[in-house]
Amino acid sequence: YIGGVYVGLTAACAAAYAVAGMSAFDAVNHAMTTLSTGGYSTHDASFGHFKEPAIPLIGTFFMASGALPFVLYIKSLKGNWGALWRDEQVRGFLKLIAFATLGMAGWLCVVDGVAILEAIEMAVFNVTSVVTTTGYASADYGTWGAFPVGIFLLLTFLGGCTGSTSGAIKVFRHQVMYLMMRRQIKLFTFPRGVFPTRYNGTTLSDDIVPSVIAFIAAFFAAVGLLTLALCFLNLDLVTSFSGAATAIANVGPGLGPIIGPSGNFAPLPDTAKWLLALGMLLGRLEIFTVLVVFTPAFWRG
Amino acid sequence: YIGGVYVGLTAACAAAYAVAGMSAFDAVNHAMTTLSTGGYSTHDASFGHFKEPAIPLIGTFFMASGALPFVLYIKSLKGNWGALWRDEQVRGFLKLIAFATLGMAGWLCVVDGVAILEAIEMAVFNVTSVVTTTGYASADYGTWGAFPVGIFLLLTFLGGCTGSTSGAIKVFRHQVMYLMMRRQIKLFTFPRGVFPTRYNGTTLSDDIVPSVIAFIAAFFAAVGLLTLALCFLNLDLVTSFSGAATAIANVGPGLGPIIGPSGNFAPLPDTAKWLLALGMLLGRLEIFTVLVVFTPAFWRG
Repeated sequence: YIGGVYVGLTAACAAAYAVAGMSAFDAVNHAMTTLSTGGYSTHDASFGHFKEPAIPLIGTFFMASGALPFVLYIKSLKGNWGALWRDEQVRGFLKLIAFATLGMAGWLCVVDGVAILEAIEMAVFNVTSVVTTTGYASADYGTWGAFPVGIFLLLTFLGGCTGSTSGAIKVFRHQVMYLMMRRQIKLFTFPRGVFPTRYNGTTLSDDIVPSVIAFIAAFFAAVGLLTLALCFLNLDLVTSFSGAATAIANVGPGLGPIIGPSGNFAPLPDTAKWLLALGMLLGRLEIFTVLVVFTPAFWRG
Repeated sequence: YIGGVYVGLTAACAAAYAVAGMSAFDAVNHAMTTLSTGGYSTHDASFGHFKEPAIPLIGTFFMASGALPFVLYIKSLKGNWGALWRDEQVRGFLKLIAFATLGMAGWLCVVDGVAILEAIEMAVFNVTSVVTTTGYASADYGTWGAFPVGIFLLLTFLGGCTGSTSGAIKVFRHQVMYLMMRRQIKLFTFPRGVFPTRYNGTTLSDDIVPSVIAFIAAFFAAVGLLTLALCFLNLDLVTSFSGAATAIANVGPGLGPIIGPSGNFAPLPDTAKWLLALGMLLGRLEIFTVLVVFTPAFWRG
């Protein structure tokens, strides 16, 4: 079923791209890297190559589709129409895109003097691309100013939904952390209170919370160590930190003049490329599946 | 008892500074901001003002002393001589300083061509200053190269020991996170295994782990939001991110040309100073004590 949904969405995306003005070859290629939130383009300028305003909007819709939990599509198709909309993770994800788009479009309008509709389209496409870990770019957002760059840096750490094709920390884990914080605030007022953490209508089990925490800790530890290793190769702080984050989160472009959306990773030293490749692998396999291979118990077991 | 230890250490520090060559006024002032890991100096150049090589070493020793759990001094004085040395947090803290010093001194020797003893002194003083959240500087470490800058950025997130005068996340919380990660790796191999998390010879209680996690999540959320707010004021990414981190961790200097160790926060816009002041307060009060004031339940309770 999941395979069917995936193929169906890819075909719909390719058809929409073709209708909007892409060549058949471009439409199929981009559809495949849109739904997989992979982000490769057949053009150096990525989505900046296409001038038709409908194309980035189609891309936004299908990147977001690729970043939703696929199992909810099956539930919806089986008649539970509200499954997608009622899901807390999906709601959080859509709210996140809406907030980031609004903030960024506002900045583009007021500070950079972009017309409002164009600003919204530029913002929603590039925000969705980074937050879903796709990595397309329709413009060099590194030149948009300090606030958009700050938003893109934070978005790198967010990611799509669990059970989707996107990488990074994912919305679900952030929501669990948020619930843990809220619980702690309640405990400050009522130290003997019992506050079970409820998510999506059920109480979070005792197994899930520690695994979420261990993952986030490992994610940040990996970003920290990779940043340090890239600094050791004499790369500046913005390149090292955004490079480490974008590799482990599987986003694609970093920030700064070298690896930003209009640059690429070619000028980096070979050692940096090896380290970033390791980071991408670690992030894509969700870290622990890689680390466990290095424990003696795994081989004995 | 804790007050006595604090006063005693401050007096010892002042005496040592005076013997090493500081004027009586400087010795008393610096001793008070060394033990409190506060970091104010009577000179613009901070510890760079003093040319006697013994002074930064005395500073290092007493900054580290201020960042150890004070209750362990009492235990040691009451006859349990090994209490300090056997404590896992103290060991972790000292190892951390040793590793960071070694890496940085190595870089200073090899890349910057500094003589080995001078490199070790420069490294150990500035590393200890940042990790204990004191914030003295004996040199403009922003010019030491990419790797030292990367180390200083990571150190900002570490902090001293709980129950000391230092701020930031603190070694104990990082160690708990490390234990959670190790437990998760074990669970990958033995999914039905039971792995109680032991720390300092006792099993971590069910209350401590969630509170550690909630704190770290709140810390990073605060750094992220403050970074975004500073970016919104058109400050560059390095200034915004290191400024947010250094304020919430109560370290002092940030990174980059404006707020780095040889700069200061004066050129920032007033709004940025208000936001950073809020960040410092939030960090010093360990976040939740501030957040709880904004919940209705706190006022009803």
